[in-house]
Amino acid sequence: MDGIYLDNAATTPISEKSVEAMTECMRECWGNPSSLHMTGQKAAAKLEEARDIIASVIGATPDEILFTSGATESNNLAIRGLIKSLGKEKTMLVTQETEHPSVRETALALSSEMPEVLILPVDDEGRLCMPDDCLFRDSLIPVVSIMHTNNETGRLFPVKELCEKTHEAGGYYHCDAVQAVGKMPVNVSELGIDMMSASAHKFHGPKGTGFLYVRRGTPLKNVTFGGEQERRLRPGTVDVPSIFGMAAALKEACEGMEEAALKMKHLKELLLKMLADFGDIHVNAFGEDTSPAVLNISFGGLSPDMLLYALDSEGLRVSAGSACSAGSLEVSHVIKAMGAEKYGAPIRFSFSSSTTEEEVIRAAEIVRNVVSRL
Amino acid sequence: MDGIYLDNAATTPISEKSVEAMTECMRECWGNPSSLHMTGQKAAAKLEEARDIIASVIGATPDEILFTSGATESNNLAIRGLIKSLGKEKTMLVTQETEHPSVRETALALSSEMPEVLILPVDDEGRLCMPDDCLFRDSLIPVVSIMHTNNETGRLFPVKELCEKTHEAGGYYHCDAVQAVGKMPVNVSELGIDMMSASAHKFHGPKGTGFLYVRRGTPLKNVTFGGEQERRLRPGTVDVPSIFGMAAALKEACEGMEEAALKMKHLKELLLKMLADFGDIHVNAFGEDTSPAVLNISFGGLSPDMLLYALDSEGLRVSAGSACSAGSLEVSHVIKAMGAEKYGAPIRFSFSSSTTEEEVIRAAEIVRNVVSRL
Repeated sequence: MDGIYLDNAATTPISEKSVEAMTECMRECWGNPSSLHMTGQKAAAKLEEARDIIASVIGATPDEILFTSGATESNNLAIRGLIKSLGKEKTMLVTQETEHPSVRETALALSSEMPEVLILPVDDEGRLCMPDDCLFRDSLIPVVSIMHTNNETGRLFPVKELCEKTHEAGGYYHCDAVQAVGKMPVNVSELGIDMMSASAHKFHGPKGTGFLYVRRGTPLKNVTFGGEQERRLRPGTVDVPSIFGMAAALKEACEGMEEAALKMKHLKELLLKMLADFGDIHVNAFGEDTSPAVLNISFGGLSPDMLLYALDSEGLRVSAGSACSAGSLEVSHVIKAMGAEKYGAPIRFSFSSSTTEEEVIRAAEIVRNVVSRL
Repeated sequence: MDGIYLDNAATTPISEKSVEAMTECMRECWGNPSSLHMTGQKAAAKLEEARDIIASVIGATPDEILFTSGATESNNLAIRGLIKSLGKEKTMLVTQETEHPSVRETALALSSEMPEVLILPVDDEGRLCMPDDCLFRDSLIPVVSIMHTNNETGRLFPVKELCEKTHEAGGYYHCDAVQAVGKMPVNVSELGIDMMSASAHKFHGPKGTGFLYVRRGTPLKNVTFGGEQERRLRPGTVDVPSIFGMAAALKEACEGMEEAALKMKHLKELLLKMLADFGDIHVNAFGEDTSPAVLNISFGGLSPDMLLYALDSEGLRVSAGSACSAGSLEVSHVIKAMGAEKYGAPIRFSFSSSTTEEEVIRAAEIVRNVVSRL
């Protein structure tokens, strides 16, 4: 027994179906899909099979799916590549404070290179504060990058409404949907998204692979240079086995999605109920417009590092925020943006389709014991 | 039987040891190595084990190894990140015509952004033509990126000598060693290399993973933005299973390296001997300073696409150049740079440690039959 894992927003255990799809592909279809001979074309066929599966799941066509090494690369390519294509001097970038570092740091880096980069604030519940006129700047095309689901709090953003506003202003909408794809229905056509990033290891697929949806006609230029793979937009030998493993995982996740979402909702409510009467706690991002997969609770008067260490010692694997701030235990930019430092040590509990009720009950007991002791 | 695969410069079949290392890691160490809890730290330990193995094989220390998604990313990061750190206006980039597209296209893209980008020519044997004074430009720091082994012809470049010249001129030397690592001894300390790129799938490891060696003290800035992984130089969740599979493959390749190199040398000579008396052929890049793993022969009076198609139909998997020029059958930039279009259709035969004498004999027979027929 490896402890109770409630850190599925950081990464998920890879599903056995995904491992098997990958290993079969590694052994049987190891060719370079760019090679014109049969060994290459066998791999190319697998690649297109994976592209078809992924496209159909998100409501896209196969030619709208670009494979990348993961969401960080997808986010960098989407934002930089779109702005490069439109012209830096002709665009404004609009994002918000609680984005993942791969969007936020990209925006900060671009702020010295373009006429305007707007990083919108959120309220104390993590909801976007967006002035009505902020997308209208004389003759600048707005490039909006606002996430689907916050990775630290589970806060959902009003993607469809934001898409409409962006399009009304003549702009393009990119969405980091890493915490949504495979966990809740995400249909790019219905939502009106122009570009969308996803990562396989967040939905029980392999690490090191992800995709970027790019609506047909969206202007995008490559930001890395090399061969002609992925329509020259993402050069480098295509990692067919991982991509095939990603498609298998996504298919599996989507088949059981409704049931899994209901289960996670129940588990989240159960955990909250078991901790609700318990001392000085505060839920960071609450209400209907949050993901069933994430619950972020601050424990008053405690330091996050000591609390996390104690929970880990008792076998409970949770986190204080994103795993991407590798090793650092500073207060996360998300908690800061919400003004929630004052509530104490924020702990993120994140569930997956394989989390059980027993695990959540045991987790609640561990938390109660540890917090009482500290 | 899947045909005779002599296209190992495009990709190699993944070794069973590597598949097993990966799958074990996927099942047992699937945590996010940036997570502070035990599930994460178990993955982090595997990651550092892999880093140790790779560092020791190339004569580096573990903190000098950065993991990337492959050589295209490594090459982009090395060149752009070094120039960004030194300052675009203070540097000159020196490379040569027969580099891989991930170096050559990067250089071409940078040529409009910096004071000087020099793309040196090669002679008709693919050897570098480098004027003695070309690294000395008033007050510009030379950044030299010249490959170890050409991927299309097997031509070896004088890396040690080039490192010395670069350092005498106060510059930094980056080497794309994709076709060398795992195939011949490459010791970064002995050679004096400052940065070196490698890709796992070229030495029987998984696709989608590679590394960049960065000598301690080499100024390098990140070119993608995100979390704090890999000392902030390469953000994104680290793909531990693939990296562990890469380390297993490299270890295996290096243990049998001497024997494999002798075998490949024998196979290359055998193939050449079996085709030498045969009509209108020309060897592109010949002599001691070529890799035993690559033999590039032009067949006079034939078109490459027809020849390749016919060889493939007979079960022989070879290529006309790099697989990175996905699908296109234009004459490669390498053959053009050597002025070798006139010799006819260039065919690259590339060997690996698992190529057998029987395969090479059968390949020679197929080539003789097909070329006679056409």
